[in-house]
Formats: sequence, structure tokens, C-alpha cells
Amino acid sequence: MIERENKAAKYKLVKGVVLWLTGLPCSGKSTIAGILERMARESNLKAEFLDGDVVRQSLSHDLGFSREDRDAHIKRIGFVCQLLARNGVMVFASFVSPYREARDSNRHLIGAFVEIYVSASVEACERRDVKGLYKKARAGEIQGFTGISDPYEPPLHPEIICETEKEAPEESAAKIWNFLEQKGYLVRRSHKSII
Amino acid sequence: MIERENKAAKYKLVKGVVLWLTGLPCSGKSTIAGILERMARESNLKAEFLDGDVVRQSLSHDLGFSREDRDAHIKRIGFVCQLLARNGVMVFASFVSPYREARDSNRHLIGAFVEIYVSASVEACERRDVKGLYKKARAGEIQGFTGISDPYEPPLHPEIICETEKEAPEESAAKIWNFLEQKGYLVRRSHKSII
Repeated sequence: MIERENKAAKYKLVKGVVLWLTGLPCSGKSTIAGILERMARESNLKAEFLDGDVVRQSLSHDLGFSREDRDAHIKRIGFVCQLLARNGVMVFASFVSPYREARDSNRHLIGAFVEIYVSASVEACERRDVKGLYKKARAGEIQGFTGISDPYEPPLHPEIICETEKEAPEESAAKIWNFLEQKGYLVRRSHKSII
Repeated sequence: MIERENKAAKYKLVKGVVLWLTGLPCSGKSTIAGILERMARESNLKAEFLDGDVVRQSLSHDLGFSREDRDAHIKRIGFVCQLLARNGVMVFASFVSPYREARDSNRHLIGAFVEIYVSASVEACERRDVKGLYKKARAGEIQGFTGISDPYEPPLHPEIICETEKEAPEESAAKIWNFLEQKGYLVRRSHKSII
């Protein structure tokens, strides 16, 4: 039993960390985070995937998309990420989070914070338009839509940039995973280890 | 080094759990939770103490004390507690949480949920009045104050009742700790164990 678990569990998480994926709607954030989550589960790591769909229901039901509301939303997520990370959890936080100041404030709060800029042009994101939101934003049915009628402030010094017009999601995920290994958040387990 | 850690770490937390302390303002919830938190820290257990002061700043800045707002507040806390507990954390949640339905809803969501009714008469709580809130409520300066101008619904089937007019906070804390041992959340470590 222990042996079988070890074969699957190739990595150990040394300390909690927040992987903050920011970028335009449909830039590919959640696709990459989903792959990372699968990788984490394969190693039985403690991991949580938070995105707008989940958090807007549970924590930010009352909030809209004004600057003030977006800031409050990101602040609440920051609090939750902080609690999880300091208890040894790997958090995949996938949020448009268009404002630099709100992201930086979470970085400051959390410490173990890896900012990942998921970069793609508005045109490329609009071509994907998974949920038909760009179409609605162009038609004026959604106000304050990031990239169309609301600003996006790219990170100035992100730890990682994923250019999703050039890279496959698996490549982006591998790049992030390697970064975590290099920085010592993840270490490879030996098959012979008991724990 | 390992040996020294083991001497302090008398208990091991087998799985995450939420200790939900409910009761009137000044009934003694946070005092008991504070003692439990210290006990958890002495054993190097993963523990978080959440109370109104912390959470109203970070998650519920926008919320007041209407029934609707209180329900939203308790729901947000439930989401956070769920995330922490399923990642192996012991959560001390100290909230007046006057409505049965909101507490039950968190119990249902979280599963590993121990409801602790911190019981004291309004008169006893009012005599303590640590922050002078009862005085303000009596003077009409605070509206909707639980126990004075707002209802409190005691738990019907709490796992534990702490009668703080009869028990010292240390006794209440010990009772809760013993319950966690009996239910297998906590196990005593052997000094000779390696982990």
C-alpha cells in the first residue's frame, strides 16, 4: 500500500504557496491551473483551485465589477489564500485581477506568492471566447468587461509569463512546475522513502 | 532536534476539524478558543483561530447585523472553514452566529464540524461586558444586538455545551480537547515516534 502510494507520489510540497494566475478573460488561466491541479493530485499534494466561478458564489456574491468591488473581491481571496498557504496548501488562484495594486497587496500579505502572467492579445482571447462573454461585451450587454471596456494592468515583474498564443497549456504548466522545483517548494520524492 | 520537537508535540491531529463556538456576546467563546489555540500550538498542530474581529475586516467589511447580512457572514466563514478543514487544519471558529439554520448549513457543508454551545445567561454576559457593547445596546446606541434587541437560537443538538457561569475556561477547553481525543481527531504521540 505504502509502496503503491509512493509510485504515484513523485513530489512532496515543502511549504504552502499561492500561484496567482492573472490575465484577460479567456487568456487560458484556468486551463493551465487545471493541469497543475491534476499534477498536484497525482502526487497527493494538498491543493486548492480557486477561480471566479467558485469564489463569486461563496465569498463575493454581493460584488460587481466596479474598481472598488473588484478590489474587495481580490482582497477577500487574498485572505483565504494566506490562510491556506500558511497551512501548507498549494493554491491555484485563477482570477482576471486586472489591477496591479490589488495583486501586489496580496503578494505583500501572503509572502509565498508566485505571480503568473497569462498573456494573450485581446484578439486571441476574443477568438476563444469560451463563454460568449466577449460577444456580449461587444454588444454592450456586459459593462466594464476587462480588455474591452475596462482596463487590464499587466504585471511589471511577474515570476513567470505564459504566452498562451505560442505555448500549449501543458508547456505553460510544466514551466510553472519547474519553477516551483527550482525554488524549493517542490522536491522529488525517492521511491524508497517511507513517508 | 527531532527529539526536542517530540517532547513538545504531545498530540497529533489526524484530520482537519472545525470547532464552531456559538453563544451570546461575552459568553466566553473567544477565551475558550484562545486556550484551545495555545494547546494546539504547544503540539505544533495546524490551527487557525477565526473570530468576528478578524473576519469582519477581511471578508465581511460590507456586512452589517441584519438577518440577511449575518447569514451571508456565516456562509463566507463556512466556505473558509471548509477549505481549511479539508486540508488538515483545526479551526477555532468563534462567532455569535445566532441563527440555527446558518450554523446547520455550515455543519452540512463542512462535515467535520463540532458545534460548541457556549452558554451563559444574558445577565452574566452583561456583567462581563468586556467591550462595553451591552451598555451601548441598552442605551440604544447599537441596534440589533444579540441577546438584547436581536434573537439568539441555541443549538438543539450541540456536540458540547460549556456552561461558563459554572465552569472555568480551562475546564471548558479541556472538555473540548477530550472530546476530540475520544472522536479520534487527536491522538497522543509516543515520545519515541520518528514523525
